[in-house]
Amino acid sequence: MDLKEIASIIGAKINSDNFVVTGMNTLKNATKTEISFVSNSKYIKDIQSSNAGAIIINNSIKEHVPSGCVALVVDAPYWQMAILSKYFAPSIEDDSLPHAEIGEGSKVSQKAEVAKGAVIGKNCTIMAHVYVGAKSKIGDNTILYPNVTVYRDCSIGNDCIIHANTTIGSDGFGFATSKTGEHKKIYQNGNVIIEDDVEIGSSTTIDRAVFGSTVIKKGVRIDNLVQVGHNSEVGEYSVLVAQSGISGSTKLGRNVVMGGQSAVAGHLEIAPFSTFAARSGITKSIKQSGLTFSGFPLMEHRIWLKLQAKIAKLIE
Amino acid sequence: MDLKEIASIIGAKINSDNFVVTGMNTLKNATKTEISFVSNSKYIKDIQSSNAGAIIINNSIKEHVPSGCVALVVDAPYWQMAILSKYFAPSIEDDSLPHAEIGEGSKVSQKAEVAKGAVIGKNCTIMAHVYVGAKSKIGDNTILYPNVTVYRDCSIGNDCIIHANTTIGSDGFGFATSKTGEHKKIYQNGNVIIEDDVEIGSSTTIDRAVFGSTVIKKGVRIDNLVQVGHNSEVGEYSVLVAQSGISGSTKLGRNVVMGGQSAVAGHLEIAPFSTFAARSGITKSIKQSGLTFSGFPLMEHRIWLKLQAKIAKLIE
Amino acid sequence: MDLKEIASIIGAKINSDNFVVTGMNTLKNATKTEISFVSNSKYIKDIQSSNAGAIIINNSIKEHVPSGCVALVVDAPYWQMAILSKYFAPSIEDDSLPHAEIGEGSKVSQKAEVAKGAVIGKNCTIMAHVYVGAKSKIGDNTILYPNVTVYRDCSIGNDCIIHANTTIGSDGFGFATSKTGEHKKIYQNGNVIIEDDVEIGSSTTIDRAVFGSTVIKKGVRIDNLVQVGHNSEVGEYSVLVAQSGISGSTKLGRNVVMGGQSAVAGHLEIAPFSTFAARSGITKSIKQSGLTFSGFPLMEHRIWLKLQAKIAKLIE
Repeated sequence: MDLKEIASIIGAKINSDNFVVTGMNTLKNATKTEISFVSNSKYIKDIQSSNAGAIIINNSIKEHVPSGCVALVVDAPYWQMAILSKYFAPSIEDDSLPHAEIGEGSKVSQKAEVAKGAVIGKNCTIMAHVYVGAKSKIGDNTILYPNVTVYRDCSIGNDCIIHANTTIGSDGFGFATSKTGEHKKIYQNGNVIIEDDVEIGSSTTIDRAVFGSTVIKKGVRIDNLVQVGHNSEVGEYSVLVAQSGISGSTKLGRNVVMGGQSAVAGHLEIAPFSTFAARSGITKSIKQSGLTFSGFPLMEHRIWLKLQAKIAKLIE
Repeated sequence: MDLKEIASIIGAKINSDNFVVTGMNTLKNATKTEISFVSNSKYIKDIQSSNAGAIIINNSIKEHVPSGCVALVVDAPYWQMAILSKYFAPSIEDDSLPHAEIGEGSKVSQKAEVAKGAVIGKNCTIMAHVYVGAKSKIGDNTILYPNVTVYRDCSIGNDCIIHANTTIGSDGFGFATSKTGEHKKIYQNGNVIIEDDVEIGSSTTIDRAVFGSTVIKKGVRIDNLVQVGHNSEVGEYSVLVAQSGISGSTKLGRNVVMGGQSAVAGHLEIAPFSTFAARSGITKSIKQSGLTFSGFPLMEHRIWLKLQAKIAKLIE
Repeated sequence: MDLKEIASIIGAKINSDNFVVTGMNTLKNATKTEISFVSNSKYIKDIQSSNAGAIIINNSIKEHVPSGCVALVVDAPYWQMAILSKYFAPSIEDDSLPHAEIGEGSKVSQKAEVAKGAVIGKNCTIMAHVYVGAKSKIGDNTILYPNVTVYRDCSIGNDCIIHANTTIGSDGFGFATSKTGEHKKIYQNGNVIIEDDVEIGSSTTIDRAVFGSTVIKKGVRIDNLVQVGHNSEVGEYSVLVAQSGISGSTKLGRNVVMGGQSAVAGHLEIAPFSTFAARSGITKSIKQSGLTFSGFPLMEHRIWLKLQAKIAKLIE
């Protein structure tokens, strides 16, 4: 696709030279051949430093676009970005890809489906009713239990164990909403990267990134029924207990412990070695390492204990 | 099945004319050929206006049954209704149905199973390890990702996307309990209807109705690991964030937003354009549109903020 | 495997006679041919009365090991136990086992996979994309809906219904953690036992025990998206509502009701006929039967109501 086609799709006018567009990305990560967008005036500060080849933008702030970058002016940049995202979505499966490669010593059930273009490492166990999507890569010695689904373009490391009915790489929860309340899907054209020595329980869901990657780092332990949102990063050796949830674009440092049914909001950074008790609700970034928290709103666990004592008095 | 057989199954005596019974239903929705029941004295007011052909009822309130409707008098109406529900349950699969119809341009994986009597529309993608049950209908351009299960008799519209490991139409959580604590299953003989342009995440569960339908209206967006109980209705363009839960028979208006891990109790009505913050717990109907709520017990978000300030003082 | 091999694996020195070791177990349940371990000084009291053939133990408390039992002295007993657990893990599938037995009248989908050594009773319905693992037994008249996964060595009784995408017998969430934060898997070599007349919803997860069994007793009703941790026991006719969670080694008495999104911590005992409202968080054992609780921290429901009234005043 080239810039002229894109301008036509989203209804923008351009006077600049045409060029081939290779993808969509954030203001921060876009390259010269990629399109970015500004959906919110709080990102104005990132426009000037963006390397994007073109930016979908509202008329009122178009003057922030640096020279050498094309302003694609539209009324509703986020909505138009959503429309455009569909054009960059690869097909779910692709018959033109080569047959899947299966490494030496790997056992793939005849009732599993490994899509064309996938690569399975050595000594893996791929059980019945597993699906591994196009171009996904599974490392050596990894076990996928029955009914695991791995969407296309994802990567799972060596020595991983993924339990039954878990989903890796389903679409992140992304859409634009019009003034009258209709939604338009933002295609999630990123992926999931799971590093080595990760174990993930059953019926857990790890969403693919909208751009770039959702990352589960080395040695992480994830329990059953856990939600990991798109573009988040779970640090090395972190532990996510059953029914906990990580919202989109949040970054956990190493050895963070999320208790059962706890959750963290989106776009936060959590310091390494933070521990969150069961049912904690985290709505702000945590900067100091090594502390233990409880409650919703969140507070240090020792303060939460004091609060409960006060509340007990209130009852008397 | 006819009335005499039913009376015999549940141990009721009848003097009336026999007739063919076509199904079971609520007092409100039952027709002349259907059986209803009264399990709770708070529904006495609905007996008089019911069009049911017969009503399973306790001796103490049988005089409320209108003339022309047969009173099936038993000691434990809810328990007997549960017993009877099994007789109206269709078989899970039915070899006498015609082969599934697959619309033009649809791609059905050889490792998917589409039961007899199912109908798949045009240009659908039905991936490996998907199950589509008897008489279920899938509209045009709809994608069912791997390991999705659609139970029998359900309907999914056009342009829908259902992500991996999600279940549509499993049995609602219904049973009668005896005085000594044993349970008797109430067969869930209704279905699920999903309208057009709905996207549902991975490992989400949408239960079929006991009678009638659980309904997901046009344009709804449902995230991962969400529970939608039987007989509920989710209004157009509503958004259910990950790990939220909708209890049975609750009706959300259009554009309701349920935050992550929030939940709403059963038998409530929620006004359109209501927004519930993450972890909200809703136990009463909401009549006024357009407000934002938080907390459990629930309160308006602006009041919740004040409460948190007071609690912060309490700690000092 | 014999004691000398084990000593070599975990780096312990032994002077005693060698013997064949049949398995690993808790201090309380280990027999003369089994190995146990002490990971925490609070279990010192259980060492003296243990019948284990050998105990993995720290040097500082080795004198508590009774005569006739071998002390396997190591620096990090829990970590070494984790390493050893892998050697006692059976292979996931085993081609040397006999073909699965399928009882009279049972219907097994050609798209299901029943592993060697499994036994299916009479008149069962095993639907497409179900997996039943090695040596697992399914009773008579039981229905496994599509995409259910039953891991090896588990047992499901008669007249059970397991809904789509549910997992029975995935590994419990067990690992040792080093001082520097790395994790080592503790293989979960126990199983799950589900008694008769149990119904389990969709996308629910029931973990296998580390040793012994996770037990779901007769007549239990479990809703969708429920987590049941390893080594827990759910008493007869208990009811677990959607998105609730039972942590490891907790024992519920009969007819316990866990409301939606409620949860109970690990290693607790809950008296029969206890009722927990939605979102309850239970962190202590309940000794008195028949009470109703709410909140987190948990309190009797009648007290919780008073507390809410006080909080309402606080807002004014």
